[in-house]
Amino acid sequence: MVQLVEDERLDYLLAENLRIIQSPSVFSFSLDAVLLARFAYVPIQKGAILDLCTGNGIIPLLLSTRTKGTITGVEIQERLANMAQRSFAYNNLDDRLKVLHQDIKEIPAMLGHGKFDVVTCNPPYFLVPEKEEKINANIHYAIARHEIHCTLEDVVRVSSQMVKQGGKAAFVHRPGRFLDIVTLMRKYRLEPKRIQFVHSRVDKPANTLLIEGIKDGNPDMKILPPLIVYDEKGEYSPEVRNMLYGENE
Amino acid sequence: MVQLVEDERLDYLLAENLRIIQSPSVFSFSLDAVLLARFAYVPIQKGAILDLCTGNGIIPLLLSTRTKGTITGVEIQERLANMAQRSFAYNNLDDRLKVLHQDIKEIPAMLGHGKFDVVTCNPPYFLVPEKEEKINANIHYAIARHEIHCTLEDVVRVSSQMVKQGGKAAFVHRPGRFLDIVTLMRKYRLEPKRIQFVHSRVDKPANTLLIEGIKDGNPDMKILPPLIVYDEKGEYSPEVRNMLYGENE
Repeated sequence: MVQLVEDERLDYLLAENLRIIQSPSVFSFSLDAVLLARFAYVPIQKGAILDLCTGNGIIPLLLSTRTKGTITGVEIQERLANMAQRSFAYNNLDDRLKVLHQDIKEIPAMLGHGKFDVVTCNPPYFLVPEKEEKINANIHYAIARHEIHCTLEDVVRVSSQMVKQGGKAAFVHRPGRFLDIVTLMRKYRLEPKRIQFVHSRVDKPANTLLIEGIKDGNPDMKILPPLIVYDEKGEYSPEVRNMLYGENE
Repeated sequence: MVQLVEDERLDYLLAENLRIIQSPSVFSFSLDAVLLARFAYVPIQKGAILDLCTGNGIIPLLLSTRTKGTITGVEIQERLANMAQRSFAYNNLDDRLKVLHQDIKEIPAMLGHGKFDVVTCNPPYFLVPEKEEKINANIHYAIARHEIHCTLEDVVRVSSQMVKQGGKAAFVHRPGRFLDIVTLMRKYRLEPKRIQFVHSRVDKPANTLLIEGIKDGNPDMKILPPLIVYDEKGEYSPEVRNMLYGENE
């Protein structure tokens, strides 16, 4: 049983055989979260994973099928943190998935530094525009999409503080912020190691960037094969179908 | 008529209907030069283009079909500069293609700063190894492949000095040096704008990086569609066949 509030729905995560609470007026996860959850390295048998800006908990839920470790989500919006908590409980995962209703900037002082094997984050992508009317009028979406409560630098700095020496931090962002993100990662000693660009079609510019760094790792960067979302017919590619629906590639 | 020395051959550039002097014991151009010549922006009707580390002049020759401007190659190896000069003359292009037998580091003092619309360079890719035996025993290949006479920083600095305000500089390199190259480009005010990764196959990591920056440009970086060299059958992709043989895609 689950208590759904207002316009919330209990959506299926088909590939993982899980369900997640979403609400069109508050938050729905995007493909980018799914891409990051598949891209990020996770320890299989044990370990501690931290997901910053977790929203409705989509990334912890997706990662839960790939690891037996614990996963902690951090979300500044109480309404979203509450949705995540109820989804974790509904899937009987609340023994090892939890959510903290917190500002990510408070987390290092609260939990201590260097405690996590992996940190993931699908952060707000957009700078706060100069003209207020360019921000989404829906405050929930505005906070999720614009750097209102945390900047990219906050995300990278906190990720670096929270991850162990030799641990991994993985982010998803827009290619336009690529130079910013690699510069910040090096500034905070997260050496970029694996990068994958996501293209809607094979003949289109990249619209999404996946990047993983290792705390105090050696410089040695690899650009993975491109991830193509749609085939020539405009249908999901086998790789993406597998991620979303669990169909074999 | 052309005078060929020792084991030199007069090879065809099929797509451009040109010929080029090559020598297996001294220098043969690589696919990377072809990729850079196709990737780089060039002014069509007029303008001045500079190609650093020009080798046997492959990039000026390939660019000559895309621009009516002048193209100056710079090559530190006398033997290669001489091959380039003879190839330019053989193709009746020596009215607008020339080669300087020079160290690229001397070029800014010699020609003055900010005179070129476009600078291209396919530089030596590899650091000078600590163990001497890891360098190619053939000195011509060693100089072309290792940073013996010029480092990546030399290449980026000189390119920035030689290009006009608002002009473009385009490089080809290995993805492993990506962070170095973008860091150096920003240091020398060549803002990275267009990047393309080259993958031998669609399911393989990138093995080559193409990057273009604008002198004092605004930050706004685009990752172009991936360039795939071979198709599933192991044959050149239509895009590469077109570059090499002039077949329509």
